[in-house]
Amino acid sequence: MLDQMPTFRDVLAARPNVYRYLKPTPLYSYSGLNDAAGLDLYVKHENHQPIGAFKVRGGLNMAANLNQEQKQAGLFTASTGNHGQSIAYAANAYGIGATIAVPAGANPTKVTAMRGLGAEVVFHGPDFDTAREWIAAVAQERGGYFVGPTDSPLICGVATFALEILEDLPDVDVMIIPVGAGSGVCGTAIVAKTIDPNIKVIGVQSAQAPTQQLSWAAGKPVLGPMQTFIEGVATRIPFENTQAIMRKYLDDFVLVDDKDTKQAMRMLIEHTRNLPEGAAGLPLAAAIQLREQLAGKKVAIDFCGGNLSMDKLRLLLQAEG
Amino acid sequence: MLDQMPTFRDVLAARPNVYRYLKPTPLYSYSGLNDAAGLDLYVKHENHQPIGAFKVRGGLNMAANLNQEQKQAGLFTASTGNHGQSIAYAANAYGIGATIAVPAGANPTKVTAMRGLGAEVVFHGPDFDTAREWIAAVAQERGGYFVGPTDSPLICGVATFALEILEDLPDVDVMIIPVGAGSGVCGTAIVAKTIDPNIKVIGVQSAQAPTQQLSWAAGKPVLGPMQTFIEGVATRIPFENTQAIMRKYLDDFVLVDDKDTKQAMRMLIEHTRNLPEGAAGLPLAAAIQLREQLAGKKVAIDFCGGNLSMDKLRLLLQAEG
Repeated sequence: MLDQMPTFRDVLAARPNVYRYLKPTPLYSYSGLNDAAGLDLYVKHENHQPIGAFKVRGGLNMAANLNQEQKQAGLFTASTGNHGQSIAYAANAYGIGATIAVPAGANPTKVTAMRGLGAEVVFHGPDFDTAREWIAAVAQERGGYFVGPTDSPLICGVATFALEILEDLPDVDVMIIPVGAGSGVCGTAIVAKTIDPNIKVIGVQSAQAPTQQLSWAAGKPVLGPMQTFIEGVATRIPFENTQAIMRKYLDDFVLVDDKDTKQAMRMLIEHTRNLPEGAAGLPLAAAIQLREQLAGKKVAIDFCGGNLSMDKLRLLLQAEG
Repeated sequence: MLDQMPTFRDVLAARPNVYRYLKPTPLYSYSGLNDAAGLDLYVKHENHQPIGAFKVRGGLNMAANLNQEQKQAGLFTASTGNHGQSIAYAANAYGIGATIAVPAGANPTKVTAMRGLGAEVVFHGPDFDTAREWIAAVAQERGGYFVGPTDSPLICGVATFALEILEDLPDVDVMIIPVGAGSGVCGTAIVAKTIDPNIKVIGVQSAQAPTQQLSWAAGKPVLGPMQTFIEGVATRIPFENTQAIMRKYLDDFVLVDDKDTKQAMRMLIEHTRNLPEGAAGLPLAAAIQLREQLAGKKVAIDFCGGNLSMDKLRLLLQAEG
């Protein structure tokens, strides 16, 4: 595994590990969306991935980099969401074990999806942190690899989507990426800034869960509230390695209100006919918020995933703001 | 253009015309969907195409086969749906003109989409047939190419999705394809039956619009009712060339009730997190109807498109049957 800050070379090394199992996803421009937003947008459809989210790229690169001993012991992680599905997918692809800890009351649909990919899902403790600490100890005890959400091989794997954006749109001006733990935005920044420091990379988080943004702005860990409905960016604590990469590379890091994100999600459904999970609404909401400074620029927005439950979809369509 | 029944060779010739602009779409298996349906299903995501539907493949092959004179005169067609968007997309890709006739009251979202692709959209007459006859006459007058919905280059272009299914799943047993005018099912049958006549190809139409199925079963044109809500399969008349191909190749052609299709659409949203248009629900509904005979078989279902309006999506989620 990588110890230092990952580089563009590491992303190139990740590519064959990713494309052994996945196809590049499309980057589309929608005239209706552009008209509605008043922008020149290019939507990167990471929701078209097999688990419905960009994270699967990272899991596959992670699994490819394991040594024989680690493969035999299997992967261990905690997640109730896309990260867990990514690790389950990768473990399944490589025929190795995956044990995923989830707290009591975890979303049954996602538990079913992880089990469907062959992972062992263990319920442990009342909340996510309890489950995570427990599974990390289990991994150590069994000599298995505990996968944290921002490990370098994950960052380099997911970074391949940013390189695809540049291949499809070499004159892209701005890339807007939602920030949860930060693997997506860090991978994007490493790729974009190495290729051309003039490409602007902007992170976006929920104003109702601004911990990563506050920490980035302050240059030190700051804990904010965590009250967003958006699972993918519901981050409670900043992560040291992704904070370091974001501080080095990010041009801007904005917050958008969940109300605006919901409106952006409805716009994405109407104009792209794709189902966005909450995090996928953030880049559009941010672009609209930054409309004046983005005028005339080619703006890539990361449709990072589509894992929205039927209940949340119903609520989204019923409400109007 | 091709005059005789198209062959697998014509499909191979279409491939470079298609892949000059499009990427192959994924074929995914979803454990949740398989559990819910009690089947071994493989979903071909043609909704991931730029216009949100498989038809774009056909338009691109059509445009590539035009001679200089035809290119100068441009393409002419009538459509309020995916066919029109396909022709508009292809004309835009080749920098040629496209004139698309639509009846008064055509869906404004689709008109916007076609205009966004640079097509000239002309409202003419109270219904689709009036618009179609008028634009065919205009095309003749101007020496332009009038594109009918089942022209051979369209069939050969869309057939490339069936070949992708076989490349990703060489041991597929059954392919279930919705039938509107018939280009998708005919392209699939030409590919599958040439490669191995043992691959079963099953067409499916709405029981509320069974004209193509009735004609196929009778071996001659039969007009049935047309009362389906599903635009993509709301066919009023059978088409001679696709009927001939279907009679030669199809193993079965089933009808499903619109009520069952709606339920299938909800299942697809829940388990694949993709937005299906009505026609994309038909193959799943048919597979569930044929569950006993499909047990133990690998069944590919054509998620032919995702162009569902917000209003129809709301209605679909509110109703339960």
